[in-house]
Amino acid sequence: MEIGKVRMENKDMETISGLSIDLPKTMVYFFSAEKTDGHGGMKEVLGGKGANLAEMTSLGLPVPPGFTISTELCQVFYARGEALPEELKSEVEQAMARVEKLIGKGFGDPANPLLVSVRSGSRASMPGMMDTILNLGLNDQTVEGLAQVSGQPRFAWDSYRRFVQMYSNVVMGMNHSLLEVTLEDLKHSKGLKEDSDLAVEDLKALVQAFKKQVQESTGKSFPSDVKEQLWGAIAAVFRSWNTARAVTYREIHGYPDHWGTAVNIQSMVFGNMGEDCATGVAFTRNPSTGERSFYGEFLPNAQGEDVVAGLRTPYPVSRAGGEKSLEELMPKAYQELVEIYQKLEKHYRDMQDIEFTIEKGKLWMLQTRNGKRTAKAAVRIAMEMMDESLITAEEALLRVEPHSLDQLLHPRLDPKAEKTQLAKGLPASPGGATGKIVFDSDRAVEWAQSGEKVILVRIETSPEDISGMVSSQGILTTRGGMTSHAAVVARGMGKCCVAGCGEVDVDYGKKEMRVRGYVLTEGDQITLDGSTGEVFLGEVKTLPPELDENFGRLMNLADEYRRLGVRANADTPQDASVAREFGAEGIGLCRTEHMFFGADRIDVVRAMIMAEDRAEREESLEKLGPMQRQDFLGLFRAMESLPVTIRLLDPPLHEFLPHTDQDISELAERLGWTEEKLRNKVRALTEMNPMLGHRGCRLAITYPEIYQMQARAIAEAALLAQKEGHKVLVEIMIPLVATEAELRRLRTLVEQEVKAVQAESSMDFAYLVGTMIELPRACLVADQIAQQADFFSFGTNDLTQTTLGLSRDDAGKFLGSYVSEGLLPADPFASLDVEGVGQLVKKAVELGQKTRPDIKLGVCGEHGGDPSSIEFFHSVGLSYVSCSPFRVPIARLAAAQTAIQQRKVKH
Amino acid sequence: MEIGKVRMENKDMETISGLSIDLPKTMVYFFSAEKTDGHGGMKEVLGGKGANLAEMTSLGLPVPPGFTISTELCQVFYARGEALPEELKSEVEQAMARVEKLIGKGFGDPANPLLVSVRSGSRASMPGMMDTILNLGLNDQTVEGLAQVSGQPRFAWDSYRRFVQMYSNVVMGMNHSLLEVTLEDLKHSKGLKEDSDLAVEDLKALVQAFKKQVQESTGKSFPSDVKEQLWGAIAAVFRSWNTARAVTYREIHGYPDHWGTAVNIQSMVFGNMGEDCATGVAFTRNPSTGERSFYGEFLPNAQGEDVVAGLRTPYPVSRAGGEKSLEELMPKAYQELVEIYQKLEKHYRDMQDIEFTIEKGKLWMLQTRNGKRTAKAAVRIAMEMMDESLITAEEALLRVEPHSLDQLLHPRLDPKAEKTQLAKGLPASPGGATGKIVFDSDRAVEWAQSGEKVILVRIETSPEDISGMVSSQGILTTRGGMTSHAAVVARGMGKCCVAGCGEVDVDYGKKEMRVRGYVLTEGDQITLDGSTGEVFLGEVKTLPPELDENFGRLMNLADEYRRLGVRANADTPQDASVAREFGAEGIGLCRTEHMFFGADRIDVVRAMIMAEDRAEREESLEKLGPMQRQDFLGLFRAMESLPVTIRLLDPPLHEFLPHTDQDISELAERLGWTEEKLRNKVRALTEMNPMLGHRGCRLAITYPEIYQMQARAIAEAALLAQKEGHKVLVEIMIPLVATEAELRRLRTLVEQEVKAVQAESSMDFAYLVGTMIELPRACLVADQIAQQADFFSFGTNDLTQTTLGLSRDDAGKFLGSYVSEGLLPADPFASLDVEGVGQLVKKAVELGQKTRPDIKLGVCGEHGGDPSSIEFFHSVGLSYVSCSPFRVPIARLAAAQTAIQQRKVKH
Repeated sequence: MEIGKVRMENKDMETISGLSIDLPKTMVYFFSAEKTDGHGGMKEVLGGKGANLAEMTSLGLPVPPGFTISTELCQVFYARGEALPEELKSEVEQAMARVEKLIGKGFGDPANPLLVSVRSGSRASMPGMMDTILNLGLNDQTVEGLAQVSGQPRFAWDSYRRFVQMYSNVVMGMNHSLLEVTLEDLKHSKGLKEDSDLAVEDLKALVQAFKKQVQESTGKSFPSDVKEQLWGAIAAVFRSWNTARAVTYREIHGYPDHWGTAVNIQSMVFGNMGEDCATGVAFTRNPSTGERSFYGEFLPNAQGEDVVAGLRTPYPVSRAGGEKSLEELMPKAYQELVEIYQKLEKHYRDMQDIEFTIEKGKLWMLQTRNGKRTAKAAVRIAMEMMDESLITAEEALLRVEPHSLDQLLHPRLDPKAEKTQLAKGLPASPGGATGKIVFDSDRAVEWAQSGEKVILVRIETSPEDISGMVSSQGILTTRGGMTSHAAVVARGMGKCCVAGCGEVDVDYGKKEMRVRGYVLTEGDQITLDGSTGEVFLGEVKTLPPELDENFGRLMNLADEYRRLGVRANADTPQDASVAREFGAEGIGLCRTEHMFFGADRIDVVRAMIMAEDRAEREESLEKLGPMQRQDFLGLFRAMESLPVTIRLLDPPLHEFLPHTDQDISELAERLGWTEEKLRNKVRALTEMNPMLGHRGCRLAITYPEIYQMQARAIAEAALLAQKEGHKVLVEIMIPLVATEAELRRLRTLVEQEVKAVQAESSMDFAYLVGTMIELPRACLVADQIAQQADFFSFGTNDLTQTTLGLSRDDAGKFLGSYVSEGLLPADPFASLDVEGVGQLVKKAVELGQKTRPDIKLGVCGEHGGDPSSIEFFHSVGLSYVSCSPFRVPIARLAAAQTAIQQRKVKH
Repeated sequence: MEIGKVRMENKDMETISGLSIDLPKTMVYFFSAEKTDGHGGMKEVLGGKGANLAEMTSLGLPVPPGFTISTELCQVFYARGEALPEELKSEVEQAMARVEKLIGKGFGDPANPLLVSVRSGSRASMPGMMDTILNLGLNDQTVEGLAQVSGQPRFAWDSYRRFVQMYSNVVMGMNHSLLEVTLEDLKHSKGLKEDSDLAVEDLKALVQAFKKQVQESTGKSFPSDVKEQLWGAIAAVFRSWNTARAVTYREIHGYPDHWGTAVNIQSMVFGNMGEDCATGVAFTRNPSTGERSFYGEFLPNAQGEDVVAGLRTPYPVSRAGGEKSLEELMPKAYQELVEIYQKLEKHYRDMQDIEFTIEKGKLWMLQTRNGKRTAKAAVRIAMEMMDESLITAEEALLRVEPHSLDQLLHPRLDPKAEKTQLAKGLPASPGGATGKIVFDSDRAVEWAQSGEKVILVRIETSPEDISGMVSSQGILTTRGGMTSHAAVVARGMGKCCVAGCGEVDVDYGKKEMRVRGYVLTEGDQITLDGSTGEVFLGEVKTLPPELDENFGRLMNLADEYRRLGVRANADTPQDASVAREFGAEGIGLCRTEHMFFGADRIDVVRAMIMAEDRAEREESLEKLGPMQRQDFLGLFRAMESLPVTIRLLDPPLHEFLPHTDQDISELAERLGWTEEKLRNKVRALTEMNPMLGHRGCRLAITYPEIYQMQARAIAEAALLAQKEGHKVLVEIMIPLVATEAELRRLRTLVEQEVKAVQAESSMDFAYLVGTMIELPRACLVADQIAQQADFFSFGTNDLTQTTLGLSRDDAGKFLGSYVSEGLLPADPFASLDVEGVGQLVKKAVELGQKTRPDIKLGVCGEHGGDPSSIEFFHSVGLSYVSCSPFRVPIARLAAAQTAIQQRKVKH
């Protein structure tokens, strides 16, 4: 807890120290049908929402007038110790006066009050992360004016009630559940179900009760001065930039702290002024499937927050959605909305996520932005927009976030598996997930850290649940729609989510959920199908994902554009086949040690390790040889005509021996050794720092016969495969080389063995000998090493460990806080540390090519499947990347995007 | 064993691959009073011995004529698969003909036979490492001729007997002890003691018996053709370049394989032709003390090998040596020898090691070379030759091998200690040593590897004993003089040695030594005083070395020349005082964690680690603070006016906790924790690779309060010391920094704490904040890190571990063979890997200076005391090196030598 505090302080200091505290020339940007200062290209200054409001206004759409306070003021706010500059006051007051004039209402005017919304808006969308206040400008006087002007006292008092709830929570720090309890108590005592059943007098009493509670709880009285309300709200929006949840969100998405948020102040329009009012959100195409059909939800007589928060289950916008639709209820507004959405999609050349409100039959546009979408939808939209000639092929490729393909590649539920359906909700985010249920975020985090797979079950989610959602396999909510917090966030994360599953009854206190007669408690297993909305009892078998035609088209298109080759890391013929299906152009890393762990051979390996002299060791190796030969033969068959890089034995020998007393006893007995002998061997092989120990090529310097056996097995397998008619391209890789002399010696050893096998069978086969570059020294003397290497394959995992002096096995304790506190820009094991490790890779490439201009260069660390790392590998001129089979599509797309972007830079 | 074989094969291949197989223009270089082809500057081609023979001949000294086959032929020999080129034959035959003509004898002429010696000689002296054959040219016919011409049949047959013994061993691979047994048996059966007591008939019988044994043992008959003898000997000398012992010797001394050896063929002169003959070796100054007096040993009626091999105990050359001296026995030859030695020393401007033979009263010079000497002698000779204006001050500084100063800095026996003298031998190599006795080299190596200190006790040593001598604390021999193998080699190694201790009776079979009624067996403890020749029973207390006036003069002279500062790594005021006495100009590394291990505080440290929250942790830190303050105050007092670099806590916390079950139980009981709690903590802190784990500045990122406590303790101590009137220069060092952000955060933390202390006492003190550069990444982004660092101190130990991916704790298993097999040029932890790690250091220096031109740059790894590393540190422009106190003098001298050599390069 204490550390968290320090972190926040430092975080602030960093924000401050990087900034100028000079005031920007323009602090406030106006937008209205009359005059608009900004435009859509000004996201840095206006934030995404402000820029879009300006752009929509310019396009002639019906947007309620208002103005945006620049993001630069957010920087000033923090630089001045969370204070706003005096100079801003007059600018804001002038802007308010213009809005008053345009709308014909007065801010704080008891006769005809102007109400405004105050919203955050940063450069990139951070849905639900920062604060919003609606209906600002209401007090005990203006509420009466609103009642009179609108002719709807109930609407006026309900707005006031909402405003007090929202403002006291966001600006004054009031615990919002206290007020909700009061509201629920009142409804209960009156036997009412919905908020909309409350009468005017109920609402008046509630407002007074709320204000009293606020005074008691915060020690401050609720402000009745509308200007005080406004400044409080502006400051609160700026402060919301640095709440823990916003900071977490930025970290996850890699957004820098200095961006800041803008504040959008806009005249209110009301979707809750009666039954001829409505509010809704819509997507210009289906965000889940990508289908080209207008897709949205609305609530009659409601404010926008009701839709987004998912507290009421909304209706579809289009008739095709079934139930009551906007198309049926308000056909004129719907027609206007359809024209607008078509105009917007054409203008922005991307699928739009729009917010609208209908006030007494009149449509108002509140927001448009590029819509979030599932990976499946992203792929389909990109391909179809290209088909429609709305975007170019290059743009289509850039429209899909490579990481997001993970969603398509994850397992789905086996349709044939026997399932017991528990319930059915909304298919909010596709994919299948199975795990133990937990009912709160903390528990989700805790269990996930201890290795459990969990499903987070909530009545609804809120931004406080982000960390729990990150830790879960999937999310189930009992309330809220497809655009509820849970649904939007889960899609962004690529997590399976079933939302609005109303038949499930959740009791947080008892930590149980009840549905169709079942009672499940924390720890019970369920399975979600995010693509159908179904919830199943227990664990259901999952299947590899089915990739559709659009996916295939995108991949083929990517292949046309990329320069980098993409291979897969695979150790078995099965893995190799999956990799080939995903489009791998070869195996970049076959870890031969994985073959040593097979049940039929691990004891032979152990006997080899326990050997007391070379003769005894060779006896075991002679048994291993034929097994390895079969392994390699399988790989060569599966990878027909494609290159296969085989890394010779790498891990320290103690990894093959047991370490607990019990395991040692059992093994000794099974293999007829004395326990003492085995224990001594284990002790003798134990290392202080195995990562830096007797492993890799160092093993073969000490025990050349191990690599000899492997080289022979490879050569024999290659010849067998060739006899079967397969084309074989073998690349033999020596790991952990630090000096040219090591590689020289082992290259000779391998070549001698291969030559011997070739001589025995009077047949040749094509092969290369190269090395894994995974030590800083190897990078520094790569010119020498290249004299002995036909290829380099960068082992960026180990290179990261040594360059940063950071053990991946041990860094877990502090690496998270290093990233979250900005001491490292990202987890260097996930995304290559270009600044440090990247320098070494670049140097090794240059030196290697100096010695051997045609040297083959690849990477086989996990970074090979990371898009930002791929960008770097492309830029330094590697020939290929190699990653796990399921990341191959990601790598193909990322490689294409990099090629396109680098071409753009050149042009 | 098997590995050794592979090694040799590869070694050969390496020798070949680097070589041209073209024949050199000149293959044979002649030397005689008449005409000499070479000169002393041609060591690369003629080897040291050949060059000196040429040079001595040119100087007009009496050198038996002969010729040298160039070292280039050795390369050709190996390049051609151990075969000599045809072209060499005629050249050698022509040269032999010239020698025959000059000497007036015929090679193989039964009437008047020419005999020759065939000796190796490489660029640098490798005493006893390669093969020599004397008396070549004898067979059953020529022996009779020699008997007739010399008038001494006994001499002739004795020469023949020696020749057969030597040739059969060296060229034909005969086990020489077989022939020795035959010899001893014969002496025993005849009741004879000395070889010289054998009669002619005995010798004749011996020769025939020897030849028969050779035939039986090797399957080949002993060659009677003198040309065949000659070619066999030449090839044997070339082959001796690659015997295991020669290879080992080269590795120890860092001589490259490609040098090769020359072959010197020289007409024989005889020291064993009667009582007017003698042979001896001498030094122009005392090689043990450096005293300016002619110092040598000789044996009447003997061949040179008798002196060198130490089989008979020789007499002194000068009368001052006591006993029968050459000065008394052969005054004329002695006078001539004195004139020659003076001429030689003046000519070579260095102390000479000369070999001579007197044949029938006539003096012949066989060899001169710069003499090996103890460090003490080297220092004295350098200073005195400078005083004599024989050499310049710069030359004097270059004359002392910095590493050799170790000898002077090692402990000597406490003169006041109670001692039980066991025996007294020759003071062959100075210093004191104590250890368990072992009687063979293998055991010495084995015990030393398991951590025992051993004394190697041998009747005499031979080159096969080198590895055992390396492993021993000291060497005791029962036969042989000051120039015996044991004595020469021990002095070269800087090891204590007592030689020729005849009263000790060694029984290898029983593994025991008997002396003055004591019987000691393997494992018993003895103590040697190599400066007096005494041997003591058990362990004797040792004292720090007494450094004489010459040493002080040399050090002061070094200080005049060096540019690099020299500091010491010291953690206590005691260490700091020793360091100051040795001339340290500051503390370059105070490891604060060493202070945490004190008996009075380790439990407080443990309580700090066991703390469950920050408050509890701070409670322990509050107790540690005042202790640390006292530690630092002591250091500041001791280092008055000199800079003190304090490294904040570095090791992972688990290093402070117990790890065995018993220790955990005890500690838990003592401190009142449950065993389980302690065990859980130990488990939680355990790391897979602690070297790359949660340590260094990473600890302070997690627990800032630890560095806060240390910063406060430093600041308070500095102010206290200042109040006492001391001048304080503090350098606070943050370890294991990988990113600028880490250092920025911790620098701020330290500065805030120091400022707080300064504010509390209204007093300032001078301090710097810097970092240890010990990770590859830190080197690569040193420009960024320098923004936060007043100084860099290179932690080359850890930088070596990470750059090479080599754990110092684990590398022991294979690092030795890596060095011996040429996979690494030297142990990278002893001598900086300039090629790899050096590149990173250089880069960091350049980047650091780019950001901050005045940045202070030092090194605090153990390399700071290694001369070849110091050369590198000088060349990249570091400000200072820091090493352990006892290495400070070495560093001072090495720094001066580097400065002188680099100045030479510039001029």
